[in-house]
Amino acid sequence: MTQGIKIVTIGGGSSYTPELVEGFIKRYHELPVRELWLVDIEAGKEKLEIVGNLAKRMIEKAGLPTKVHLTLDRRAALKDADFVTTQFRVGLLDARAKDERIPLSHGVLGQETNGPGGLFKGLRTIPIILDIVKDIKELCPDAWLINFTNPAGMVTEAVLRYTGHKKIVGLCNVPIGIEMGVAKLLDVDHSRIRIDFAGLNHMVYGLDVYVDGVSVKDKVIDLLSNPENSSFVKNIEGQGWEPEFIRALNVLTCPYHLYYYKKDEMLQKELKNFKEGTTRAEVVQKLEEELFELYKDPNLAIKPPQLEQRGGAYYSDAAVRLISSIYNDKRDIQPVNTINNGAIASIPYDSAVEVSCVITKEGPKPIINGDLPVAVRGLVQQIKSFERVGAEAAVTGNYDTALLAMTINPLVPSDKVGKAILDEMLEAHKEHLPNFFEKVEV
Amino acid sequence: MTQGIKIVTIGGGSSYTPELVEGFIKRYHELPVRELWLVDIEAGKEKLEIVGNLAKRMIEKAGLPTKVHLTLDRRAALKDADFVTTQFRVGLLDARAKDERIPLSHGVLGQETNGPGGLFKGLRTIPIILDIVKDIKELCPDAWLINFTNPAGMVTEAVLRYTGHKKIVGLCNVPIGIEMGVAKLLDVDHSRIRIDFAGLNHMVYGLDVYVDGVSVKDKVIDLLSNPENSSFVKNIEGQGWEPEFIRALNVLTCPYHLYYYKKDEMLQKELKNFKEGTTRAEVVQKLEEELFELYKDPNLAIKPPQLEQRGGAYYSDAAVRLISSIYNDKRDIQPVNTINNGAIASIPYDSAVEVSCVITKEGPKPIINGDLPVAVRGLVQQIKSFERVGAEAAVTGNYDTALLAMTINPLVPSDKVGKAILDEMLEAHKEHLPNFFEKVEV
Amino acid sequence: MTQGIKIVTIGGGSSYTPELVEGFIKRYHELPVRELWLVDIEAGKEKLEIVGNLAKRMIEKAGLPTKVHLTLDRRAALKDADFVTTQFRVGLLDARAKDERIPLSHGVLGQETNGPGGLFKGLRTIPIILDIVKDIKELCPDAWLINFTNPAGMVTEAVLRYTGHKKIVGLCNVPIGIEMGVAKLLDVDHSRIRIDFAGLNHMVYGLDVYVDGVSVKDKVIDLLSNPENSSFVKNIEGQGWEPEFIRALNVLTCPYHLYYYKKDEMLQKELKNFKEGTTRAEVVQKLEEELFELYKDPNLAIKPPQLEQRGGAYYSDAAVRLISSIYNDKRDIQPVNTINNGAIASIPYDSAVEVSCVITKEGPKPIINGDLPVAVRGLVQQIKSFERVGAEAAVTGNYDTALLAMTINPLVPSDKVGKAILDEMLEAHKEHLPNFFEKVEV
Amino acid sequence: MTQGIKIVTIGGGSSYTPELVEGFIKRYHELPVRELWLVDIEAGKEKLEIVGNLAKRMIEKAGLPTKVHLTLDRRAALKDADFVTTQFRVGLLDARAKDERIPLSHGVLGQETNGPGGLFKGLRTIPIILDIVKDIKELCPDAWLINFTNPAGMVTEAVLRYTGHKKIVGLCNVPIGIEMGVAKLLDVDHSRIRIDFAGLNHMVYGLDVYVDGVSVKDKVIDLLSNPENSSFVKNIEGQGWEPEFIRALNVLTCPYHLYYYKKDEMLQKELKNFKEGTTRAEVVQKLEEELFELYKDPNLAIKPPQLEQRGGAYYSDAAVRLISSIYNDKRDIQPVNTINNGAIASIPYDSAVEVSCVITKEGPKPIINGDLPVAVRGLVQQIKSFERVGAEAAVTGNYDTALLAMTINPLVPSDKVGKAILDEMLEAHKEHLPNFFEKVEV
Repeated sequence: MTQGIKIVTIGGGSSYTPELVEGFIKRYHELPVRELWLVDIEAGKEKLEIVGNLAKRMIEKAGLPTKVHLTLDRRAALKDADFVTTQFRVGLLDARAKDERIPLSHGVLGQETNGPGGLFKGLRTIPIILDIVKDIKELCPDAWLINFTNPAGMVTEAVLRYTGHKKIVGLCNVPIGIEMGVAKLLDVDHSRIRIDFAGLNHMVYGLDVYVDGVSVKDKVIDLLSNPENSSFVKNIEGQGWEPEFIRALNVLTCPYHLYYYKKDEMLQKELKNFKEGTTRAEVVQKLEEELFELYKDPNLAIKPPQLEQRGGAYYSDAAVRLISSIYNDKRDIQPVNTINNGAIASIPYDSAVEVSCVITKEGPKPIINGDLPVAVRGLVQQIKSFERVGAEAAVTGNYDTALLAMTINPLVPSDKVGKAILDEMLEAHKEHLPNFFEKVEV
Repeated sequence: MTQGIKIVTIGGGSSYTPELVEGFIKRYHELPVRELWLVDIEAGKEKLEIVGNLAKRMIEKAGLPTKVHLTLDRRAALKDADFVTTQFRVGLLDARAKDERIPLSHGVLGQETNGPGGLFKGLRTIPIILDIVKDIKELCPDAWLINFTNPAGMVTEAVLRYTGHKKIVGLCNVPIGIEMGVAKLLDVDHSRIRIDFAGLNHMVYGLDVYVDGVSVKDKVIDLLSNPENSSFVKNIEGQGWEPEFIRALNVLTCPYHLYYYKKDEMLQKELKNFKEGTTRAEVVQKLEEELFELYKDPNLAIKPPQLEQRGGAYYSDAAVRLISSIYNDKRDIQPVNTINNGAIASIPYDSAVEVSCVITKEGPKPIINGDLPVAVRGLVQQIKSFERVGAEAAVTGNYDTALLAMTINPLVPSDKVGKAILDEMLEAHKEHLPNFFEKVEV
Repeated sequence: MTQGIKIVTIGGGSSYTPELVEGFIKRYHELPVRELWLVDIEAGKEKLEIVGNLAKRMIEKAGLPTKVHLTLDRRAALKDADFVTTQFRVGLLDARAKDERIPLSHGVLGQETNGPGGLFKGLRTIPIILDIVKDIKELCPDAWLINFTNPAGMVTEAVLRYTGHKKIVGLCNVPIGIEMGVAKLLDVDHSRIRIDFAGLNHMVYGLDVYVDGVSVKDKVIDLLSNPENSSFVKNIEGQGWEPEFIRALNVLTCPYHLYYYKKDEMLQKELKNFKEGTTRAEVVQKLEEELFELYKDPNLAIKPPQLEQRGGAYYSDAAVRLISSIYNDKRDIQPVNTINNGAIASIPYDSAVEVSCVITKEGPKPIINGDLPVAVRGLVQQIKSFERVGAEAAVTGNYDTALLAMTINPLVPSDKVGKAILDEMLEAHKEHLPNFFEKVEV
Repeated sequence: MTQGIKIVTIGGGSSYTPELVEGFIKRYHELPVRELWLVDIEAGKEKLEIVGNLAKRMIEKAGLPTKVHLTLDRRAALKDADFVTTQFRVGLLDARAKDERIPLSHGVLGQETNGPGGLFKGLRTIPIILDIVKDIKELCPDAWLINFTNPAGMVTEAVLRYTGHKKIVGLCNVPIGIEMGVAKLLDVDHSRIRIDFAGLNHMVYGLDVYVDGVSVKDKVIDLLSNPENSSFVKNIEGQGWEPEFIRALNVLTCPYHLYYYKKDEMLQKELKNFKEGTTRAEVVQKLEEELFELYKDPNLAIKPPQLEQRGGAYYSDAAVRLISSIYNDKRDIQPVNTINNGAIASIPYDSAVEVSCVITKEGPKPIINGDLPVAVRGLVQQIKSFERVGAEAAVTGNYDTALLAMTINPLVPSDKVGKAILDEMLEAHKEHLPNFFEKVEV
């Protein structure tokens, strides 16, 4: 890393890229990126061009020496990289739409991470991530892989369990979103908030919350027991927790908990979207089209404010903050997905968890905050079982294992319904599931 | 125990008592019961008389010297007892009907053990069990408490966690029912079957199954993947597992797993029963009325065969077998509910589990069979969380804790629905929930 | 196993073999051995002939159809075996003499299991055991390997950790010796005693002891606190525990504990033997010579009573009892070395332990008896560290690892002394340590 | 803590106090100490006066508003304290001399922490610490107790296990000494070094070592395998590790490891000191006398440089750094003694460990660095067993338990020798062991 940093972003044509670029620009003083390689596949070539050119204009405007490379040749890009970020979407938003709509057509929540939809996102994504890891081991073995691609928990689990590669961090914007939400709720600056996060990706709890180092959990729980304050992250709205429930739970929830603790209400809402053609994928598809129109504007040289409506806010900040803390051995505390190693006693020692970590040059090191409360352990462990069986299905392409993962998911009401969804989704995603449709020996 | 054994059966007026008496008669040669005390409460006095007199006639016919005592004075009965069995039902079958019907009226399965119904059965039962344990500690501290009262897992957990009393064994007829079912399926005698059981009460799996010491699990799984064989225990019928699901699960299930892996189908079936007034409680109420009519017959001196339709088959055999193995230090293997102590790695060390144990004079000692398969850990742990929070609610009478237990139960779709069920059930069971309706300091 | 059992005994020329043969004769009614193959190496050919012919005479006298085969061809013998027992001694008693004498010449106890001597016995033995396991996997994959060869704990650990072969049981006569000793102490028949054993090979404790199922631990501890009763196993004598020490320890010890809790006194005693040429190896060498003279007598057709002075009493009984319980799926309780899997919480899950097990056709299944008392955990864990590092040294032939194993052994006073002993012993045992003296890739 | 901080130092008359005061002066800008209460007992009154007056002069010279209070009334001092530090020595250096000399007179290392000497220091100290905790709970329940008094591990264990008080941190200068030593060895500034510490007090290992965030462990191990570099902390000198041993151990040791991995050599050295009257206690006694002579000088208003020869270097820095990090919620990484909670998998979850922690306003939170290497687990666990049994003996005053703690210590060669040492030491320390010599109910 002597002469500046080489970053490789796989899925570089993503609409999120301008955020990432903005992050690199803002932190250039501490994180001198020499080369930024945006990598995409043939099908994403056009978007890559659009986004890549915007990235170049942004960097030029900022007056920085960072060189932006656009390429379809992943291996060429990876050579000697310092950090690799992955933010691709196999099958694009069309695939996400299927992930959401097919389960809903069976009366079941799709949920793009820890539900039937997430299972399929995992089945499509994991084989490619494993392929990337193989390349990394060969071409840039010292690089850190920073994965933003969902389901980030299942992906991290798969990499840890099936590749032996340890330099992976899974990153999610949910924890930072919770911090922002709490900051707003308490009307204090974000920098004064710290939360002890523990759990799994999209299944993470805040065990305690501090302002200037002093616990304010009781106050926050109290505020959250007021239904008006219950949901403070934009892209999933609930009706607020039952006050007695959140008080007894006595930890901060994340927005995705609504899918489990308010399953019925979420299902009703999403069935409505399903009928109206306004599922999240469909909404996002429109947003993306508009964004790319904006990105094309040769006069645009900043991240357009409209991107914030896309969801995924703070990803850029979280990602660049993480990379900078590793690069600079900052030893600050950030919540990421990494190997458990005893941080959460009720999760297997060698499994991926999402937990507050000290970020060092050696990577993230979980902080001990005690075990999860008894009341939440069961659900967390159920999602962990789902992640592990799902990861195994992705790696082996075994139909029975996939049905098992589907059926043990808490959103799926029975093996029969699970099978119906599985069969329809396998067919719908056929082209992106070679492990299931070609004979593969694993 | 020098001059024969003193047994105390709390809930002695139960329709099951004749089975128990039959069991004591059959095993008298190895288990010489000197005194059998049948204890009940004022409200059950008439039934106690009926059942007690049948018990006397049965013993007289068998020509045994066992003395049967009928009493409403529990403390007098407990004095110097060797074994105490508990099989009472707080609020009788009316309460069970409410446990089943109220959740169904909200579109939710009641399930008398690991569902909203089971929670309420626990809330009613646990304070009384804890009272009994207090008496045992004082009046017969060396006695073993053999509990058949459901929810047996939550009850065992509560006794272990809140009383420090260790001489408790929770007993269930589900494992023996599975053994019988497998024996029938394979057409071999029950005595040649052994199953490695592990899990929780009504959430127990058969990790392996042997005939004459040779594993036949693959064969049994194969047979179970034929839908016709899937359900081999009478009182809950399923439509059979999806073959690929049961193959991937690769362990034997218990009938109660239908509530989780076939939630939708079970719900449809029970909603039909709900509408037709044929929920299990209602069916059993009729059966019980008929049984008590039979029991009244002064010429009846055997267990009437009609009792077998009552469900709960093999309880007698299981119970007397357990008591005899403790008494005789038999060191044979039986599945019971006891403290985990590491037998199942993914369940807390100090929690109750249902697991194959060697039965010694010192009580049951779990056998190590390795951990639960990853795919089932999550659901088991979720029920364990439910049992622990439920037990805490029963002991404290705390409304918020009760709502938490309700909401984290996998059958309950949301905190809102959970609260509606909770409120209605609290009201319905008011007279049997003094912890919730009187000011109690715990 | 349809037509009778095939047993292969590696190290068949051992002086113990007549005991084993006697055991098979006594249990023929339940364990019909069709073929007994006694295998040895070229250097042991003469002894094999002597012992083998005695074995044939014994079986002939007993009128049994068992065929005894004597061979130097291990692979031929292993083909289709049902049970393989290993009782060989690499380098014979000369090697044992070095194991004992070299450390003593440096003022350090040798101890043939859990000391410097045991380390070298492990270094010589483990590569050969691993070789045998390789053959078993190929030639008789369903056979159980019953290992009597010391250090039985380190050997079992090595097989479990480095071969993945699970059908191994390590067997030791120390637990049965303790049972016999306790029976004598209490003046009751051995069959009425049961002890909850837990720990490691030659580092095993009796957590509780029962007569007819009733705990008599307090009485036994009380008797043991009388110095006259303290040592009840023949081949290691102590001066008795300090009464306050054994009371506070509050568990039964094994004779090998004298090496750790009475290190000084044991050292003085053995230094005396060292000077007088009466170390255990030297005494045994004489005994063996006498035994083989007896064995040669063509009129001898029984196990000569002099064998009992050899030490290793009850091995025969323990071994044949174990084989019979596996063969007959007896489900009785026996203490053996097997994989922990949570039976002892403070020992790693995947390590070998010596613990009371239910013996089934599927092999031994540990019984849960709770964790080891705090006071003994440390020493047990230290021996476990020694066993694991020792096993690694044996497999890799790495000098540094061997020095590490030597230095962390609680009998070795420093890295410097450890190195002196190591270097001298490596040289002395050179011919039996090919991993250390040839270039071997592992 | 609104108007500045109140610090209470129990054992305020210690010769270390000037270091502490210097630390407070240096960090006044970030840690505004308003009141410093130096507390001692009647017997220490004179020293308290001397040291206290020096402290006052030092603060005056620094021009700070901190008020120094000298008192024998502990309870008055504790009222509303923010931090309480404990650095007292029951029985003063005379007692330490006995701790060292009595075991040596039996040919056994005394070792003032994890040996027979440390056991007695624990027996004298723990009851008083527990008394202080009782006062803290009453008079300043929000205060943090920072304990420097040895044996810091046993003391922390006792407070955690027997008082339920969680706001205790045990502090030791060994880790900072290792950091300093490594910095010197590598010739880099201390601030650039970070070490992953894990283990127990005076039994702590450096699992990895970084310069500017890059691991240099291999280089450091290599340097340490050169005997000249082996010992880099002043007050215990070794002859250097055997190079192959330290390479295979592959972690950084602390100076106290010499007592276990070089037991013989340390014993020879200390026996020499014993004969010459130059045991550490005797040397320190002289140094202390000289120091107090210096302290008396009314012109002295700084920490005299001679204090550094006293040993215990960096204590001041470590202590004030820790207090400041808690006060300021700095979230930096420091090695301290705190509750394990899973940070080191092979140590019980609820035991005290010495481990790198993030220091927050909520106290220290251990960082996960993976488990201890197999080779060191045994010794660490043995010391943990010793600490726990020792703490129990201190609390109960039970003779048998004390003998058990003594005998299981790895420095003690047998129960017999242990008993001889125990009896002599109990007699020698009689006046400071009321739990053993008065009837006390615990």
